[in-house]
Amino acid sequence: MRQRYKPWANDYIKNNSHLIIPNASDYISKWRTLFNNQNPIHLEIGTGKGQFLVGMAKQYPNINFIGIELEKSVIVVAAQKMQEANLKNVLLLNENAMDVSSFFSANEISGIYLNFSDPWPKNRHEKRRLTYHTFLEQYKVILKPGSEVVLKTDNQGLFEYSLVSFSQFGMTLEEVNLNLHEINDSQNIMTEYEEKFAAKRQAIYRCRAAFFDSGAQD
Amino acid sequence: MRQRYKPWANDYIKNNSHLIIPNASDYISKWRTLFNNQNPIHLEIGTGKGQFLVGMAKQYPNINFIGIELEKSVIVVAAQKMQEANLKNVLLLNENAMDVSSFFSANEISGIYLNFSDPWPKNRHEKRRLTYHTFLEQYKVILKPGSEVVLKTDNQGLFEYSLVSFSQFGMTLEEVNLNLHEINDSQNIMTEYEEKFAAKRQAIYRCRAAFFDSGAQD
Repeated sequence: MRQRYKPWANDYIKNNSHLIIPNASDYISKWRTLFNNQNPIHLEIGTGKGQFLVGMAKQYPNINFIGIELEKSVIVVAAQKMQEANLKNVLLLNENAMDVSSFFSANEISGIYLNFSDPWPKNRHEKRRLTYHTFLEQYKVILKPGSEVVLKTDNQGLFEYSLVSFSQFGMTLEEVNLNLHEINDSQNIMTEYEEKFAAKRQAIYRCRAAFFDSGAQD
Repeated sequence: MRQRYKPWANDYIKNNSHLIIPNASDYISKWRTLFNNQNPIHLEIGTGKGQFLVGMAKQYPNINFIGIELEKSVIVVAAQKMQEANLKNVLLLNENAMDVSSFFSANEISGIYLNFSDPWPKNRHEKRRLTYHTFLEQYKVILKPGSEVVLKTDNQGLFEYSLVSFSQFGMTLEEVNLNLHEINDSQNIMTEYEEKFAAKRQAIYRCRAAFFDSGAQD
């Protein structure tokens, strides 16, 4: 999604360092001190305008949420939503997902959400997909054993690719759903995209895949 | 699919023991002597009227195919197709899939096909699904390491269930396809059901999942 250029975004980000945390790698192993509690931390990679992240933070007050978003023109919209909701359990990082393992220490994260990630359909762009094995390697390090990556997308190609990628990396599928809105999951928090697709009755795919220590699946 | 009762089916089966092999467990470890070659053996579980099995046997003359079908009124139709095609590399068993590991020895089989299997949608019938773990345990024994189970279905629930079941059993997904006829796979042999669904442009799902010895995925 192309966003209108927001000339005020840079200033807004600078002036709201309590919402959009600068120099994320300074906080490695210290995120709980920023949240001021010992609750588990869940991560959304590619937070966009923040509807999912803020919705989840409201729904689960005993989980801390961190959203990573590279695009300045949308992260500021997410920050405004956070501010309006006045939540203590959510923070944003204006960073590149490629560096995610430099922001968090081993086992520091208890869940990762990938929502409507860029499908990068061309084969030569496979490495950019957020479910490519180099990303999975980073997720495995920062996630506690048994924790899940939860993927939602409307993109058939990305979903097919991701199921195979998860499996070949040794992750265990906990759920596969090929038409999420058919089941009326009342816990499902929708992203902005998802609301539009749901209105058109297009299928939304979801899967949950867990990392286990080798041999711990049984 | 309910089949018209065929009063001649029992006699036909008795009189065509060169096509529909009786007492399958007598041939454990000896199937290659029946085919009179050392080619790999692939198995279709739930062969129905045999269009897939016979099509595959034509397409792959250097593979031996065995089809298992419990329903007498359809296996006779499969046998007639075999006879017309005059193929040397295909046999039928009028047996129950629950006993599959009593017909074949360890590593005797090099591929298993499950085509449009009964989805058994009720939870209390989960054990009857051909991708329930008790079936996977049998497939693992009779399949050579690295061999695949190839599943095709139009049933969303069975497909979702099977992906999770394969994964939790430690199998590795090699392919997931959520709309098989979109890709124009010229190698794809269609079943009778599949032709009907394809004509209606309904989605056909396919996945391929392999058994590896533990730790051999990499």
